[in-house]
Amino acid sequence: MSGETTLTIIGNLTRDPEIRFLEGGAALCKFAIASTPRRYDAKTNKWADGEPVFMDITAWRDLAEHVADSLSKGDRVIVTGVLKLDRWQTPEGDNRQKMTLTAEEVGPSLKWASAKPVKATRTTPGGVDLDDPWAKASPKRPGRETVGAAAGNAFADEPPF
Amino acid sequence: MSGETTLTIIGNLTRDPEIRFLEGGAALCKFAIASTPRRYDAKTNKWADGEPVFMDITAWRDLAEHVADSLSKGDRVIVTGVLKLDRWQTPEGDNRQKMTLTAEEVGPSLKWASAKPVKATRTTPGGVDLDDPWAKASPKRPGRETVGAAAGNAFADEPPF
Amino acid sequence: MSGETTLTIIGNLTRDPEIRFLEGGAALCKFAIASTPRRYDAKTNKWADGEPVFMDITAWRDLAEHVADSLSKGDRVIVTGVLKLDRWQTPEGDNRQKMTLTAEEVGPSLKWASAKPVKATRTTPGGVDLDDPWAKASPKRPGRETVGAAAGNAFADEPPF
Amino acid sequence: MSGETTLTIIGNLTRDPEIRFLEGGAALCKFAIASTPRRYDAKTNKWADGEPVFMDITAWRDLAEHVADSLSKGDRVIVTGVLKLDRWQTPEGDNRQKMTLTAEEVGPSLKWASAKPVKATRTTPGGVDLDDPWAKASPKRPGRETVGAAAGNAFADEPPF
Repeated sequence: MSGETTLTIIGNLTRDPEIRFLEGGAALCKFAIASTPRRYDAKTNKWADGEPVFMDITAWRDLAEHVADSLSKGDRVIVTGVLKLDRWQTPEGDNRQKMTLTAEEVGPSLKWASAKPVKATRTTPGGVDLDDPWAKASPKRPGRETVGAAAGNAFADEPPF
Repeated sequence: MSGETTLTIIGNLTRDPEIRFLEGGAALCKFAIASTPRRYDAKTNKWADGEPVFMDITAWRDLAEHVADSLSKGDRVIVTGVLKLDRWQTPEGDNRQKMTLTAEEVGPSLKWASAKPVKATRTTPGGVDLDDPWAKASPKRPGRETVGAAAGNAFADEPPF
Repeated sequence: MSGETTLTIIGNLTRDPEIRFLEGGAALCKFAIASTPRRYDAKTNKWADGEPVFMDITAWRDLAEHVADSLSKGDRVIVTGVLKLDRWQTPEGDNRQKMTLTAEEVGPSLKWASAKPVKATRTTPGGVDLDDPWAKASPKRPGRETVGAAAGNAFADEPPF
Repeated sequence: MSGETTLTIIGNLTRDPEIRFLEGGAALCKFAIASTPRRYDAKTNKWADGEPVFMDITAWRDLAEHVADSLSKGDRVIVTGVLKLDRWQTPEGDNRQKMTLTAEEVGPSLKWASAKPVKATRTTPGGVDLDDPWAKASPKRPGRETVGAAAGNAFADEPPF
């Protein structure tokens, strides 16, 4: 893709991440964050919270699994991703739309917490490891070995992340 | 402010910008852009449009005036600004929300067009020029000379939000 | 490309842009900006300049031509591009490196200036217009019609911008 | 500060982070990452590494301590921060300059790893916790209790730069 709108947003998870697996085995994780700016009040000499921005975020594949494994409600995270406009019609025929973020990278913020990364055993970036121990370990992912084919990723210039 | 979510978005104006002036004289300009990513299709060897993201944008003060003076429907622009979540209730009592952008910088894109900048005569960044010739020149802005005081914040070049 | 570091920087041109044309006809424009943050001093109630960041920027093709046509020393611009690390060796054998920006979009800032965009007549985004009137107009670009092949752009997933 | 250039960069630590404590007790952590873009080669149907960008990064205070506690050489991280141009003179009188990043947020990337955040016990954002158990626990930080005063700026959670 070219010309997408990418942004980085920092905020706290408003709920635990929810993961599910598509038929082909690809993981899909949804979560949401509240990003609250702060304003310095020169009169009171204190910081006060501004209006929060709530953002729904979707992560895919390995990233989805690691988000679900690592994060829970309240955690502060850094998310970099691509802005997407979801549009739909209500049963009453009204048009609705909502901005969401498709995550490219997610990380727990080290501002107020420590977080030691533990590398996944399956880590050929963008590739398929035929010895992937996860494929056998997880009964939730019966079609795991078909991830590459399954994701329906029609964009030849995108990494199969 | 600290911890705001800033982003840069590139797109084409979906309509002419609309400017109005607050009672104190501060300009407020609203416009909207469509940002359309493109993806390369390896089969056809061509680029195809992806799903557009529509973004409502608000500019303030000098920036608002220059946007209104310079841009019109169809123009491609670069916008850097702060993400904001507008929330309101419909007359029926339903909650609605929409992401918008408060512009910090706007510029016509030089990708497919030329655009020579013409400096405004009133340009003491962040300051107030008491000899501002614009204040007298524009019948549209009767309260112009009170801009600094009107915005109710200490940063004369910052939006009063 | 995937995983590049993109950034948006706002600053003033420290010199006039310099354009040249590669053998194949592709334009290449180099310019530099100084981006100066400002800090609000609560004691003096004034803004003061912080340390500037100087950035060398390269634009290519149409964008290069429009930058050269539109901008000059002192102009304030918004630049979005990809961070690049140039590395070389001095005649004395010392290693040197410098961060530069390859521009994706450039626009004159409308914060302190107006700038009306004038669309180029040749505007098939990413394509080649065989009726390109520019190709005949510019004696400096004899090989203009070979732009697509000439740019040495080995990246199949990048637009020939 | 206003008008700073912020960017988000993703890369792998090229060495273990190094932490030290200023006289007043404030922590300062330096590390460096290599950010390597990848491009898809349509001929070989594979991704290949592009030219890496190396970036020196400085984190301050709590963030510095959590970076040092959590990360080590090779870890993939997301870093959001402010671009800074360091300038100095060599003993021979030559001028040198280098772009660095002052980190605002750092997080281990969840793309190829899991990382469960563990909240620091001392976490009054922006405030000073007089009962800070860390102050007593760590012999490395004898002047810890003076952090707030030491930084010499009004924003206790901001780097003293």
